[in-house]
Amino acid sequence: MIPSIEWINESNTVRMIDQTLLPHELVFLNFSDYREIAKSIKAMVIRGAPAIGVAAAMGIALAAIEFQYMDFQTFKLYMNQAADTITSTRPTAINLFWAVNRMLEIIKKSPKKKPMDITCSLIQEAKHMWQEDIDTNHSIGKHGADLLVDGDTVLTHCNAGSLATVQYGTALAPIRWAIQEQGKKIQVIVDETRPRLQGARLTAYELHYDKIPVRVQSDNCAGLMMMLGNIDKVIVGADRIVNNAVFNKIGTYMIALAAKRHDIPFYIAAPQSTLSMNETTKNVIIEQRDGSEVANVCGKVQIVPDGVEVINYAFDITPFDLVTGVITEHGVFKHRELVKKYKK
Amino acid sequence: MIPSIEWINESNTVRMIDQTLLPHELVFLNFSDYREIAKSIKAMVIRGAPAIGVAAAMGIALAAIEFQYMDFQTFKLYMNQAADTITSTRPTAINLFWAVNRMLEIIKKSPKKKPMDITCSLIQEAKHMWQEDIDTNHSIGKHGADLLVDGDTVLTHCNAGSLATVQYGTALAPIRWAIQEQGKKIQVIVDETRPRLQGARLTAYELHYDKIPVRVQSDNCAGLMMMLGNIDKVIVGADRIVNNAVFNKIGTYMIALAAKRHDIPFYIAAPQSTLSMNETTKNVIIEQRDGSEVANVCGKVQIVPDGVEVINYAFDITPFDLVTGVITEHGVFKHRELVKKYKK
Repeated sequence: MIPSIEWINESNTVRMIDQTLLPHELVFLNFSDYREIAKSIKAMVIRGAPAIGVAAAMGIALAAIEFQYMDFQTFKLYMNQAADTITSTRPTAINLFWAVNRMLEIIKKSPKKKPMDITCSLIQEAKHMWQEDIDTNHSIGKHGADLLVDGDTVLTHCNAGSLATVQYGTALAPIRWAIQEQGKKIQVIVDETRPRLQGARLTAYELHYDKIPVRVQSDNCAGLMMMLGNIDKVIVGADRIVNNAVFNKIGTYMIALAAKRHDIPFYIAAPQSTLSMNETTKNVIIEQRDGSEVANVCGKVQIVPDGVEVINYAFDITPFDLVTGVITEHGVFKHRELVKKYKK
Repeated sequence: MIPSIEWINESNTVRMIDQTLLPHELVFLNFSDYREIAKSIKAMVIRGAPAIGVAAAMGIALAAIEFQYMDFQTFKLYMNQAADTITSTRPTAINLFWAVNRMLEIIKKSPKKKPMDITCSLIQEAKHMWQEDIDTNHSIGKHGADLLVDGDTVLTHCNAGSLATVQYGTALAPIRWAIQEQGKKIQVIVDETRPRLQGARLTAYELHYDKIPVRVQSDNCAGLMMMLGNIDKVIVGADRIVNNAVFNKIGTYMIALAAKRHDIPFYIAAPQSTLSMNETTKNVIIEQRDGSEVANVCGKVQIVPDGVEVINYAFDITPFDLVTGVITEHGVFKHRELVKKYKK
């Protein structure tokens, strides 16, 4: 797959795939205004925790370009406002906050530099984070691939693939590495992932694009498929990993319960930037999105009668007793190892 | 709600609500040919185990009207062919086979009668089964209502309501009875129920129609909603209850697993005709329907890229260790009571 997002050097703009139009059309959008980046994150033109992080960093870089001719204090003020605009888009994925904070640190550490020079550093940092994301995903792939054996069928949920990152993916990285670098035969089953259907629309699209065998099922099908012995491993991504649980796309928790019932290994694949081991589930806001996402499929087919209320949580919580291991760029960790290594 | 199906005496025809058009249009279809009844079962114009049973019985009655001027042997031959056509539509729900066998028994027991007289008996029997279904559902409602307490929020899946039966419903019967006969305040949450969306389209429609508070969520949401303490009880229907498990709409099993995790009572509501306690899960074929039901939502929005295969099981299997009780027209039974009472 081509990258989901890129910095265009010639124009100092950001180019993204419009993921709301997939799998029907591969359309690229160009952004020069951080406010539009924020809107695109909110509207899920770009989505997936790591991709949102990079988009946010690039948004901060665009803001700096806009404000670079101001004096430092005004620049800082406007940059903080831009940061607020960007971080207020989606509350659950931590990578958004992590990326923006990393960018703001550069401003904090450069009080004597001219905003124009800081802007250069910010652009460099955003581009660096872009490359870092790809490298991280390759490492996740390498570590995770060793968990897969030739002939495995892996269930994944939502899209934690190339499109959810800059490229290569998190949950899909071990599958790609096992196939492409280790020559293993691996098949993928992906849940369609209601309400936004990222599994059917995006994961199926990018795996099919890359000629990796993939089948789609409704989210309801996972339990039976495990019972029938059709699934060997589960690998999903994460939006935030706290010390007692994993936040990921709504539906993940029920898959983890079914995997536990059938002794099927259940792995989370995520970069270290998704870890927030000093938090517990109590600190985290679970985003509730507009009910129309459920009531009106792809904005085209109304399925819920007029006047009926809709519940639409975007993420759920999978406690660590259901998680076999977390695959990061540094290895595969059990819960206690993760706590020991990352809780301060 | 108005009945999902009715025998029209004036014309000796069958009238059904076309459930594929709900919640947008309330359209009635009239049938005088059993072959069209079979097609309508297959296409899910009418669905729900008890409603399919009554539709099948009425289909047999229509066949008898068509063949009533034949001699007995030819009549019997053609009636058996009609029975095969009707039972070959959907393999999992047992009520279909139960209803057709009950009708064929009448033919077997009347070798000396004229086909024209047998036809009268068959029409009477089909109409009797229609009334019996309504009475049964009221009894299910009465027994099940005692399990609900004032203020409960009940999760249901798919549609096991008025539209899945002649009227009143199975899983929705205890809710209706608790509200309408006992004055309890009960709220309903229904899973949208992919792929055919019977929860969003039908359950939400009929409860909203009857002014019973109902909210819709994606199937993925059930686990989180239980974790958040938003669900007090689960009641679902069944398509076949065998001695070690319950067959019901795909997704039921994962809800049952989540309910177990959170100590939430999980009830099955079904008429005795759904019981098949001499069978085990091994004997039962789980219907696999066309992948287009998943890939193309309501036949209107394609969500899976061209060329990608789809898995589409219509039912799953919930083992009895996850079932708190089965509500039938004769009471509420634990697994061992059900086996003791009904296994021969």
